[in-house]
Amino acid sequence: MKDLADNLGPSSWLDDILWTEDGLVPAIAQDAETGDILMMAWMNRESLQLTVEEGQAVYWSRSRGKLWRKGESSGHQQVLKDIRLDCDADVVLLKVEQKGGIACHTGRRSCFYRTLKDGEWVSAEPVLKDPDAIYGSH
Amino acid sequence: MKDLADNLGPSSWLDDILWTEDGLVPAIAQDAETGDILMMAWMNRESLQLTVEEGQAVYWSRSRGKLWRKGESSGHQQVLKDIRLDCDADVVLLKVEQKGGIACHTGRRSCFYRTLKDGEWVSAEPVLKDPDAIYGSH
Repeated sequence: MKDLADNLGPSSWLDDILWTEDGLVPAIAQDAETGDILMMAWMNRESLQLTVEEGQAVYWSRSRGKLWRKGESSGHQQVLKDIRLDCDADVVLLKVEQKGGIACHTGRRSCFYRTLKDGEWVSAEPVLKDPDAIYGSH
Repeated sequence: MKDLADNLGPSSWLDDILWTEDGLVPAIAQDAETGDILMMAWMNRESLQLTVEEGQAVYWSRSRGKLWRKGESSGHQQVLKDIRLDCDADVVLLKVEQKGGIACHTGRRSCFYRTLKDGEWVSAEPVLKDPDAIYGSH
């Protein structure tokens, strides 16, 4: 992550982003090796800066209103391999190494596990690990 | 696209989506063959329904406030191969065949062509075709 850590001087690159009115930007996580799209979540300025500083995905949880270090409960961190910005500067793409091979809280590899079939969303990907085993059943 | 056209009965699958307050959902377009992430745009209910009906990506242009049939000016349509919904039901993923091999209005394959290097966003992907040649220079 040396290359990415080189980005920690003046953070004008953060100013290049067109944040929403709420100060957020959508962030897509893609498996750097397989190309699978793992999830989409949101980042605020602090979480994006921390993502680059720490070399792993740090999102902003809109529901909890706090920073969300991906993997803090599950151990399924996303190690940053590359970070991209789109032409409109309003979406970020993270290419990551997905620890444990599981991004989704349902225990599946990707959060995009439902496909449209006969007018219904149906699961098209297996559960690799029981969520209770990932998070503990309290 | 027969499989996807089978989804055109009752559209309860549209009700399963957690639309934003503005009635939108983010849609990520991924090259079905290479796995490249091409772009992210927004859809409203009508555009998502049309995407499935027509078998090609139809977005909602927030800036223009109208339906946006991807490729209507450029010829670079996105033919729908699969459609996915994430675990939170608030992001859609389209797996597409990208006509012309160019998704971005800059003439690049993907809109995510900028990478962070030494604290600056720099282009990491070549322009495949001059935008003037794509859209005409009026």
